[in-house]
Amino acid sequence: MTTEPPAHAAFVAFTLAAGTDRRALGRMMRLLSDDAARLTRGEPALGDTDATLAALPARLTVTFGFGPGLYRAAGLEDRRPPSVADLPVFRIDRLERRWSGGDLLVQICADDPMTVTHTQRMLIKDARPFATVRWVQRGFRNTPGVQPAAFTQRNVLGQLDGTANPRGAEMDTAVWTPEGGTTLVVRRIRAEIETWDLLSTVDKEAAVGRRLTTGAPLTGQQEHDEPDFAALDPAGLPVMPDFAHVTRARVTDPRLKILRRPYNYDDPPNAAGHPDSGLIFASYQADITRQFLPIQRRLAEKDLLNQWITPIGSAVFAVPPGCAADGWIGDRLLG
Amino acid sequence: MTTEPPAHAAFVAFTLAAGTDRRALGRMMRLLSDDAARLTRGEPALGDTDATLAALPARLTVTFGFGPGLYRAAGLEDRRPPSVADLPVFRIDRLERRWSGGDLLVQICADDPMTVTHTQRMLIKDARPFATVRWVQRGFRNTPGVQPAAFTQRNVLGQLDGTANPRGAEMDTAVWTPEGGTTLVVRRIRAEIETWDLLSTVDKEAAVGRRLTTGAPLTGQQEHDEPDFAALDPAGLPVMPDFAHVTRARVTDPRLKILRRPYNYDDPPNAAGHPDSGLIFASYQADITRQFLPIQRRLAEKDLLNQWITPIGSAVFAVPPGCAADGWIGDRLLG
Ligand code: HEM
Ligand code: HEM
Repeated sequence: MTTEPPAHAAFVAFTLAAGTDRRALGRMMRLLSDDAARLTRGEPALGDTDATLAALPARLTVTFGFGPGLYRAAGLEDRRPPSVADLPVFRIDRLERRWSGGDLLVQICADDPMTVTHTQRMLIKDARPFATVRWVQRGFRNTPGVQPAAFTQRNVLGQLDGTANPRGAEMDTAVWTPEGGTTLVVRRIRAEIETWDLLSTVDKEAAVGRRLTTGAPLTGQQEHDEPDFAALDPAGLPVMPDFAHVTRARVTDPRLKILRRPYNYDDPPNAAGHPDSGLIFASYQADITRQFLPIQRRLAEKDLLNQWITPIGSAVFAVPPGCAADGWIGDRLLG
Repeated sequence: MTTEPPAHAAFVAFTLAAGTDRRALGRMMRLLSDDAARLTRGEPALGDTDATLAALPARLTVTFGFGPGLYRAAGLEDRRPPSVADLPVFRIDRLERRWSGGDLLVQICADDPMTVTHTQRMLIKDARPFATVRWVQRGFRNTPGVQPAAFTQRNVLGQLDGTANPRGAEMDTAVWTPEGGTTLVVRRIRAEIETWDLLSTVDKEAAVGRRLTTGAPLTGQQEHDEPDFAALDPAGLPVMPDFAHVTRARVTDPRLKILRRPYNYDDPPNAAGHPDSGLIFASYQADITRQFLPIQRRLAEKDLLNQWITPIGSAVFAVPPGCAADGWIGDRLLG
């Protein structure tokens, strides 16, 4: 998850069936880990019903997340990372059940949408004896190859999204726990494109604190220039507005940063032609309470962007560490 | 539409608003043609609300289709190509209103899903004074770049799909009318993946008459080998089953062929994990009655594949010829 993200993603959340206990979870994760390992190598899954579709892995990655309910079902509440718990409700939230929660998450990413489709189908099939599908969210980013090599994607609001993400060693500090795991927050955030599109470019840029074309901070020239929050305009007002998204979200301590890996969604518009579009916001961090929550609290409290974005789904997961060649994902917890 | 199709497509069908007459249609098509011309060049549309998203055309193409209702609204019933009329109902059909019909179609294709999203948004916005959105179908094919240069895509059933399409001069004969237009049939065809996946490879191959891995006919070795419908197996039965999809669909006269350009869809599965997946079947032909209908009739009557595919949507359109540099799409009809 620390390289350029593939263009297509499916976030698949499951509800565990009654009776799926620790031993059953172990059987399930053995199966799903084996499927994921084979499919990412471009080999069919065991019992693959469409082996031909496994031949193009297209940078496939499969990431598993354990929700609070999985620890309960396993009788291992004491092993749940304390920060993996339902988020507090923020006043900006308009959460819908159909996009929220989940005991198990499978996040499937690849550069080819057919690879995502096939992998999703195989993993859901093998999870069926243990769980039902709670929700599926499909999303996309700009396609590699269409873009220059190292690029920041544009999101559905037209913004360069991902600029201030931690990089290199900073990324490692921010993302991984000492045990080699991480946590994942998934928020479905609807974009109010209709009203957003009424804004002038200047107003759009003020809401975020960065330019639309270059992604540069309002105080700079290039995308990766550091914003200068002390700079004042001739009228004596801060050039980076106090309530701009970037000003409010800013974190400088690498241990408190989060790695944002959002995907865009664009579902069919309504009859009047109003888009149903937004972000599947996904962030990785070692600890949700310490890293994600303070940022989300500041943004929920005051963020110019809030007028044009609405969280409609929310879920949190622990991402277990990778496993040894003869192991399976989650073996240290469930084995 | 006669080069390798881009990876992503949106089929957007509109219902004309009451009072959208010939003059209003002219205004609308002037606007939409101008949008399409600019966006395919990588320039923002006039009044583009997210100009930054226009910068990456990613092989964008925009194709317009006029449904029977558009000719009625324009008072130009006599100019409607006779074959552009609701298809007869076939006994395999389970058509749903929400995927059927349409007075105007805009088909948007590009290699980057964000380009499709932005183009769709601009065109819907400019069509709004004249029409409401009837349905939108998003689909995908294998991503170019992930695949070798000249490839046949695989569909959600794992088949190589497109092998026997007309090519080169044959394509021209099949697709274009003397006036330089064509017609488009869009059928949403659900795939019954659950039962399909119970079949053995041999049974899957018999249903179509081609091999899953190579796409070769059951009588040949390579994808583009000609099927031999007279070949018998040791038991004296035809190697290409009489009711195989390819046997039934076969057309040899280039004037009677159709150009198939299907896209795959994969919407969220239900709680039990059953896929909602299939083909947005799209075919181009000079004349629907002469070319498409006889094939569809033969297939509806007998085709082994019918057990695993169900048409749930249907629409037909005339695709007007391209226009001069200072013209607009449809000007010869509506101008
Ligand atoms: C639809 C919702 C959102 C949109 C459209 C959005 C957009 C943006 C944009 C355009 C930037 C500036 C470029 C960049 O550094 O990536 C940014 C930065 C940032 N966003 Fe968001 N964002 C959204 C939601 C969130 C949420 C839910 C969080 C966390 C709770 C968040 C945290 C951040 C952080 C930490 C930064 C970097 C700030 C810095 O240090 O410069 N964003 N966002
Ligand atoms: C979900 C629905 C369908 C699936 C999965 C499907 C699949 C296939 C496959 C795998 C082939 C062989 C490879 C190729 O030449 O592309 C084929 C061929 C063909 N199909 Fe379909 N098809 C579907 C619907 C239709 C429909 C609705 C029509 C037209 C009414 C059609 C007309 C044809 C034709 C004309 C050929 C070429 C036959 C030949 O000359 O060899 N198909 N299809």
